[in-house]
This record gives sequence, C-alpha cells and structure tokens, in this order.
Amino acid sequence: MIEVINDEYYMDLAISMASKAIGQTGINPVVGCVITMDGSIVGMGAHLQRGEAHAEVQAVKMAGERTIGATAYVTLEPCSHFGKTPPCANLLIERGISRVVVAALDPNPLVAGSGIKVLQQAGIEVKVGVLEARAKKLNEIFNHYITTKRPFVTLKSASTLDGRLATKTGSSQWISGATARAEVHTLRHQHQAIMIGVNTLLQDDPSLTTRLEVEAKQPIPIIVDAKLRTPASAKVIQHSGQRAIVLTTEAASRDHEQQLQQYGVTVVRCGAGEQVDLHAAMQWLGEHEISSILLEGGGKLNGAMLQAGFVNKLVLYYGMKIVGGADSPALFDMAGVELMQDAYTLEEVEVAQVGEDIRIIGYPRYSSSQQ
Amino acid sequence: MIEVINDEYYMDLAISMASKAIGQTGINPVVGCVITMDGSIVGMGAHLQRGEAHAEVQAVKMAGERTIGATAYVTLEPCSHFGKTPPCANLLIERGISRVVVAALDPNPLVAGSGIKVLQQAGIEVKVGVLEARAKKLNEIFNHYITTKRPFVTLKSASTLDGRLATKTGSSQWISGATARAEVHTLRHQHQAIMIGVNTLLQDDPSLTTRLEVEAKQPIPIIVDAKLRTPASAKVIQHSGQRAIVLTTEAASRDHEQQLQQYGVTVVRCGAGEQVDLHAAMQWLGEHEISSILLEGGGKLNGAMLQAGFVNKLVLYYGMKIVGGADSPALFDMAGVELMQDAYTLEEVEVAQVGEDIRIIGYPRYSSSQQ
Repeated sequence: MIEVINDEYYMDLAISMASKAIGQTGINPVVGCVITMDGSIVGMGAHLQRGEAHAEVQAVKMAGERTIGATAYVTLEPCSHFGKTPPCANLLIERGISRVVVAALDPNPLVAGSGIKVLQQAGIEVKVGVLEARAKKLNEIFNHYITTKRPFVTLKSASTLDGRLATKTGSSQWISGATARAEVHTLRHQHQAIMIGVNTLLQDDPSLTTRLEVEAKQPIPIIVDAKLRTPASAKVIQHSGQRAIVLTTEAASRDHEQQLQQYGVTVVRCGAGEQVDLHAAMQWLGEHEISSILLEGGGKLNGAMLQAGFVNKLVLYYGMKIVGGADSPALFDMAGVELMQDAYTLEEVEVAQVGEDIRIIGYPRYSSSQQ
Repeated sequence: MIEVINDEYYMDLAISMASKAIGQTGINPVVGCVITMDGSIVGMGAHLQRGEAHAEVQAVKMAGERTIGATAYVTLEPCSHFGKTPPCANLLIERGISRVVVAALDPNPLVAGSGIKVLQQAGIEVKVGVLEARAKKLNEIFNHYITTKRPFVTLKSASTLDGRLATKTGSSQWISGATARAEVHTLRHQHQAIMIGVNTLLQDDPSLTTRLEVEAKQPIPIIVDAKLRTPASAKVIQHSGQRAIVLTTEAASRDHEQQLQQYGVTVVRCGAGEQVDLHAAMQWLGEHEISSILLEGGGKLNGAMLQAGFVNKLVLYYGMKIVGGADSPALFDMAGVELMQDAYTLEEVEVAQVGEDIRIIGYPRYSSSQQ
C-alpha cells in the first residue's frame, strides 16, 4: 500500500499507538505522539500507564537532541498544568519544537485550548483537528469520565434474532459463535470493571476473567446484589484476577458482609430501598476511580441500567437463531415504553458480521424524560 | 469500469435481464439469454410473462439471420419438452447455434440435464455452471415451487433490537425508516401474494398494495382468518389491486362467506380445527398456482408459519430502537424451543445497513424435528 505522506500519515501512527493502549491507562486518556524532523520520524511514544510518562515525554526522550525545529504530532492537546508530571506543553517549548499538530482538544471544557495557547504564545505553529473524530472515539471512556465523574458503561449482550438471552428453559449455550465470544475478552481487557447481577452469578458462577492467547488485563468484578446473596465460594471471589466489589443495600446482612470482606471483597451499601440505588452506585464507583464498566447483565440489570440512563454504549451480538417463547429471558426485562417514539434509540450505529454472528454497536440517545 | 470479456461477461448481462423480471413471470422461472457472433452481441432477451416467448426465442428473433455458428448464453438450461411453447433446445439447433453456455441446470431432478443432452447430441458444444450460484438464487422461488408444489414464503418483519413489533400499547409507527419501508414495496412486487393474519387486518386495515415511484405488480392479499371475521368493508377487499383469498376453517359462517364472495373474495376452508390448517392452506395455494408469498404477519402467524416449516426466507429489518415490556408484541409469538441447540437457525446470512436500519436476510435450516 502506498500512502500519501502528510500530517494525517503521522497522526495515524500516533493514533495506532494510543489505540493499542486502550484498557491499560486506568482513568487516564490514551495518547500517542510522533516527532518528525528533516523528513523522518525521530521519536514516538504513548502514555502507557497512569503515573508514568506522558506520550510527549516518551517521544521527546527517543528523539534526544533532534527536537529543535521538529514537528510533534499528538492525539490529544498537550497538558499545560502540573499534574503527576510537569506540563507537556512546556516540555515541547523547552525542547525547541517548532510545529505541533493536535488531533483533539482536551475534553474538559474548563481547560480545552489552554495547552494550545501556551504553545502559540511561545511562537510555535499549532494545527488542530487532524483525524479528530478518530482521536475522540479513542478516548470515549476518558472523555465521559472526566466530564461526568461517572463510569462509562458498555452494555454487551449475546441474544437471538428475536431478542432472547436464552430459551424458556434457560438454555443459552451457545447463542453466539467462537469469534464473537473471543471478542468479548477484548472488551473485558478494555474496561476497568465488569458488572453482572447476582442472579447471573448464582446461575452460572462465571469467573469473569479475561482469557486471550496472550496475557491481558483482568477487570474488577462488580456484583449488583440487593440482598447480599453472593456466596464467598463464588468464582469471582475466589479466582478473579481482581478483588470484587459487591453493590448492595442498607438491609443486607452485616455478618455476610464481614465474611466477604475476609476475601478482600468491598461491600458497598447503595440506598435503603429494595433494589440497589444505581445512582448512588455509579457515583461511588466514579469516586473510587472506576472509569469504565463492561455490563454483562441479564435482562433485569440491562433494563435497569438503560432506564437509569447509565448505558453509554451497546455492543449487541446476535446469533442467527430464533427461539420464541414468551417466557424466554428478554434482552431488556423492563416495564417498557408506551410509544414507539419514546423508544431508546441507538445512534452512530456500526454493523458487522463476526464469524456466523452479527455485531451491532451503537450509542443510546436519551431524551430528557429518559434520564 | 473495464471488465475482462469472457463467458461471465455475457452471462452477467443475461442474469441482469432475468433479475429485473423477478415478480412478473408468475409460476415460471426468470430466464435471460444473450447471443453473440463474431465478437459482438447479436441478440438478447428475457422471459417476461407466463405463456409468452422464452428468453431464447426473444434473443434468436433479435439475432435474425445471425445465429449460424453463434454462441448462446442462457441463465437456465434450455427446455427440451413441449410446453406452452416448443422446446428451446430444438430452436437453438435449428438456428445453427454452435456453442451454448448455461448457468444452471433445470431444478427439476427428473429433467435436469435433458436439454443439455439434446444439444450435445446435435453436436453443439455445451458449457454448464457459469455464474451458477447467482443464477440459482435468481430462481429460488421457482426452484422451490417446481420441486415442492408449495409457495415459497418470504417472511418480512420490522422489529426493534429487542425483537418487538410494537410497544406494549401497540404503538409501532415507525420502527423502521423510509428506506426500509420503501424496500418492502419491492418485495411485494416480487411476490405473487401477500399474507397477513386477521388481527393485523382488524387493527390496521392495511391496503397491502405495492406503492412505488413507477407502476408495479400488485400482490394477491391472503388473510389467515380462522373465524372468518374479515369485514367486507376492509381495504384489502375493496381497494386491493387483486382479489383476496381468505383462509378459514369449516366452522366459519356460510352467510359471511357469501357476502365476501360478492366482492370477488375466494374463501378457502382449511381443516375443521380451531386454527387454519396451514398444511392444507399451503397445499391449496400451491395447487392454485400461488408460487410465492410475502408473509407480513404478526407474531402469532410468523410463529405458526415458522413452526410449520413453511418459511423459506427471512428479511428482517431492525430499527435501532429498544422498547422493553414483557407484553410488547414479539416478532415470534410461539411456544418456543426448549434448548438453544434446537433454535431455528438462519443460514446464508446477509446483513446490510438500509438507511438508519439494519436488514438481515437468511434462510432457515429446519431440523427433521422442526418440519
């Protein structure tokens, strides 16, 4: 393949580097940086882990002396504030960079553009918006978390063409094929936590681990469990790569809480109602730096999360199967809307064939009455 | 576009001609024919209507004198029997054609290959199988009807992502967008009949006509109506382009039958049970030369037809909407299978984005226990 060499050519590489780091930067954004001089790449880098060097620092380090008069391509506006590391805008100035190409501005409206301003005031030529849409999508989790302080929730499901998670007898193996099932592990790697309801736990006793050909990140299991029925013997307690969080209510047994705590489980009491107060839960999770959740719920939890307006993205796998049965578990088990015009509607839809299945990705648009 | 000129190049044209005639040949197949001589097309034609000239006859007519030593491309094996017209194989021999390229053999196993044999015995070079898969798909209706004597049934639906035909209050406007709704009229044009249940008729009073920018064929309305509740005032009786067929049971009112007959309606009594005996119905329809049906049923009729093994193809439109509600009408309202491995499974699946909606086309594979 022969590509035209231009700003997009180098930004594409910066985006690739950032994109492969999705899932490993915690509540931080993924960022890639490429530095070019005299027609060649002289440095490249990505932000790999929270608390470690920013992408610009890595790239400048690789470039060594060769930054004076160079061009830096950065997927995200360089920071201009002192955080865990000194501001990258200043670093680029100090190292004599003469041109900076930025894909997307800082999502925080309070500081968006301030890094650009610092660079421009130092006489650096700045170009903004190169491959902007791709760069923004890369950080959909970060952009949501940093502006709302609540986790970005991706609902993943595998259902039949008639919207059922299982047959009326509960049989569900297998709705989707091996390729779709393997993709789910990539989604687990890319999210900080994985959420299920206690009914799924009691029925299937899943381990909720990421299982891929290569080593991958393990998500924190989150169990929505109003009556604190999660047994200490559950696989997510005993064999998960991370310590579980159990969301429950004030009425839950203190004894059982203590028992779970012995295995490192964090029990969070969300409200005094019959059900877990999802608003309180999402607030607590956000405060405790859970920026992303993969929701692998049954119909009830899917419905409750959607109705509460907490689902940010849906990844729906459809097996090419029809099962029927009014009692077959539904993809969304909720009261339901009155009018078709009030339906939860997906936008920015992408559809693809994945092995023998179909995958639909979309983002729900919530009307004011839905959230 | 520059194409390589070869046998596929001419067969492609023959297939295009046949394909645009889908819907207008009744129980006959669609067939296209191209005749070439001295490096040029000298004749082309398609079978346009039952009882009229076959494709080969049309193409030979256009070629005039220029058939001696010519090559004929035919999408379907030329006939070798005397039907409504003399056999085309003989015509090609008489006109001095020296080479015949055939896409697909006759679907009737009793006569498949006999047209080829007649040609070969006359010393004509015959090549079979050029663009065969496309040619076979073109005549999926004919191939089914000629071998089973039952109508080919295409189930068309528009549902939400959670498999609902409407909200719990019955609201369904609109699940799908304008593009998908327009495609349905092409499907109506391409099928001889359109089938709905009496509940849909009583609720919506649809006209079931084909409405396109240009004039198109009108399907015969078929109402599945066990208790003969179809009012004579219904639009499908009063304003349809074709006289309706009402499928009912022995117990239905004779008086009401007579009233409907006054409007040209054919009332067919299928069995003495509570429900219309679909096996008897499909047999009657096949015997009365209905070779294709577009099923636009509600969940009950969809379910009954699928469970009876009569659905041959599904065209499922999904609006990017979620409605929930256990009582929201389901795409398939049937008892349902016990195990996921017994689900009705679609094969040869095609998926496409159609406007804001997604269209999934597939063919159900019935296990022996399902049919």
